[in-house]
Amino acid sequence: MLNSGSSSIKYQLFDMDSLAVLASGMVERIGEAQGHIIHKVRGSGSEDEKTIRRSLPVADHRQGFELMGQILSETGAIRHTSELAAMGHRVVHGGEKFQAPVIITEEVMETIRGLIPLAPLHNPANLTGIQVAREYAPEVRQVAVFDTAFHQTIPEHAYLYALPRSLYEKLQVRRYGFHGTSHFFVAKEAAVHLGRDFSDTNLITLHLGNGASIAAIKNGRCVDTSMGMTPLAGLIMGTRCGDLDPAIIFYLARETGMGLQELDALLNHDSGLKGICGDNDMRRITECAAQGDVHAELALDMFCYRIRKYIGSYLAVLGRVDALVFTGGIGENAAIVREKVCFGLAALGMGIAREKNLAATKGLRELQQDDGPLKVLVIPTNEELEIARQTIDVLLRRASCD
Amino acid sequence: MLNSGSSSIKYQLFDMDSLAVLASGMVERIGEAQGHIIHKVRGSGSEDEKTIRRSLPVADHRQGFELMGQILSETGAIRHTSELAAMGHRVVHGGEKFQAPVIITEEVMETIRGLIPLAPLHNPANLTGIQVAREYAPEVRQVAVFDTAFHQTIPEHAYLYALPRSLYEKLQVRRYGFHGTSHFFVAKEAAVHLGRDFSDTNLITLHLGNGASIAAIKNGRCVDTSMGMTPLAGLIMGTRCGDLDPAIIFYLARETGMGLQELDALLNHDSGLKGICGDNDMRRITECAAQGDVHAELALDMFCYRIRKYIGSYLAVLGRVDALVFTGGIGENAAIVREKVCFGLAALGMGIAREKNLAATKGLRELQQDDGPLKVLVIPTNEELEIARQTIDVLLRRASCD
Repeated sequence: MLNSGSSSIKYQLFDMDSLAVLASGMVERIGEAQGHIIHKVRGSGSEDEKTIRRSLPVADHRQGFELMGQILSETGAIRHTSELAAMGHRVVHGGEKFQAPVIITEEVMETIRGLIPLAPLHNPANLTGIQVAREYAPEVRQVAVFDTAFHQTIPEHAYLYALPRSLYEKLQVRRYGFHGTSHFFVAKEAAVHLGRDFSDTNLITLHLGNGASIAAIKNGRCVDTSMGMTPLAGLIMGTRCGDLDPAIIFYLARETGMGLQELDALLNHDSGLKGICGDNDMRRITECAAQGDVHAELALDMFCYRIRKYIGSYLAVLGRVDALVFTGGIGENAAIVREKVCFGLAALGMGIAREKNLAATKGLRELQQDDGPLKVLVIPTNEELEIARQTIDVLLRRASCD
Repeated sequence: MLNSGSSSIKYQLFDMDSLAVLASGMVERIGEAQGHIIHKVRGSGSEDEKTIRRSLPVADHRQGFELMGQILSETGAIRHTSELAAMGHRVVHGGEKFQAPVIITEEVMETIRGLIPLAPLHNPANLTGIQVAREYAPEVRQVAVFDTAFHQTIPEHAYLYALPRSLYEKLQVRRYGFHGTSHFFVAKEAAVHLGRDFSDTNLITLHLGNGASIAAIKNGRCVDTSMGMTPLAGLIMGTRCGDLDPAIIFYLARETGMGLQELDALLNHDSGLKGICGDNDMRRITECAAQGDVHAELALDMFCYRIRKYIGSYLAVLGRVDALVFTGGIGENAAIVREKVCFGLAALGMGIAREKNLAATKGLRELQQDDGPLKVLVIPTNEELEIARQTIDVLLRRASCD
């Protein structure tokens, strides 16, 4: 599994049969004076883990791949790339073209390239990773898994904006949604836990990390999500504003003389939790709020209030909800966020039990207050595993067609 | 009651004791080659109404007032402005300065002028009306009633955006909300109908007209509303897009080269229902949809879907809701909109009975399906009456302080 950013490569090596993680790591600061690689090897015992760290200049993604290959070989994980069944790449934006993972061909790459205007920061880096992987290991099948794919079942009345239709037809302006791999992963886990067929499960899944989104899932299919054409919309995030009166952009341009690029940067990098209280780390915000810092408290309140509004909204969309699922760094770890989100939602069947919420348990757990039909769950996400699973699925589907 | 637009003056003359409408009218196309006045006189019988129409050039608002005064005098409604107890002016934006109606002084006018950047289209026209009224009838007390005032009880975590705090402190960027006079009016009517103290009534009020907004009212106080810093945000409207991924503005600027003014006009004047299906008249849209026009159907679906999401959202905010209230031209008249909005909300106690919804009754009516605690009401709004009431309240409060 590979996730290539503009100056980083994250990877995990899976055993194809057991889907156990054999090794994982990250090459960072590619192109900078000093690069860095951190590599973890799983031992045979479940607690056994060895970490290797190296600092050295990494000129480009190609060199990053070589470094990764070298360290995988040194540690005995794999001797040669030919041992790999496939490489599964995370690709942020699949537009309307990709509703499922695909084996990467020249044509697929061309299509991903065509989607760069929709994801100018992410798709180019993802493409670089794919390109280098193809050169580095030409004998290995490359698979693309898209962050947008799970949301492609959202119906027209929910994915279109109230804009002239030509903007959709000619410029692809519509809601796409992101974090699809994570929402899909925890949704399937939830269905298994509930003992329900996925195709008969209604869920509200909350992926809360530095980026944050929420999805409404009806009968196992996504029917709405909070991120929009871009990841800027929806919930309040670490540094992104989420939903905003769009006219504020015009007002700020008029009143401050800021240009569009500056405004874009303001809303994406200096807003959200950071804009409200100066910090975008939820752990620190929680600590500061507990110590009575009013801005940290406000950031927490606003973050949770926005989430509550979305939960109500998706409850109205779905009618019946089987479970509310918290995931992502904040969703899994910040008990105070879950408490504030669910506070007052007891009337809607979403109250949580204080002691269950505060328990320092890891893994999947139930938090709901009573024995009502609606469960409130915490489910650790695992996008890497989901990408590995989907990569294998594509190979198997392909094999069954051959 | 006076509502001054950039090229129009709407007025209603009320009997101060009974609050009966004695006359009403509108001067239109002020400043154009050919102006127009339409004036209605209430007779003694309740169905008795006489309409006077005149076409003539109206150079400016001053001449508009003279024309209005002349026709009021000719028809015997009032002989002289000195017979008026007060004139109540609708003012769109009161910012954070005005949480209630006020008697207009030079200082008040200065404050309203200071708010022009927040409402560049509306406040200047409202001010012109006030200025001319003061000159035309210097002996009459002038009162300002603000569209934003009812929303001033919205708490900080709901009115702030997730933006750097300086934008609020220095540039007044926050949610204000509009249509406050209408939400307040129907909310009070609803409480009376329910036989509840207003201060113990929780409501979701939907003002659906060419502009549209929804408000969450807890214990008689507004706690959230869908319009934002400007009237562009929230629900889908006749020509306004409502909620939108703000990054779409950056994308469109990049991809089309459109400037900010053009984009502003696009989102305010060519979007909404008009953008989706080419028409912003809900009656025609309903007719076309009934005849199978897919774009009209889509516009209707999107319009109602957005409303449903807000209803769910405010249900989560309020916990307990005593009534859902439809008002405004569309809310009062478009049965299909009420049906589509409430379809599927039965699980949340908001189902409506088909025959009650389709009944061609006017006036306040109940639509809910069963005897549950939550009522679904249609209540005709009357902003003019509410402005007249508030105007009188200010005079009485003032008198009791003198």
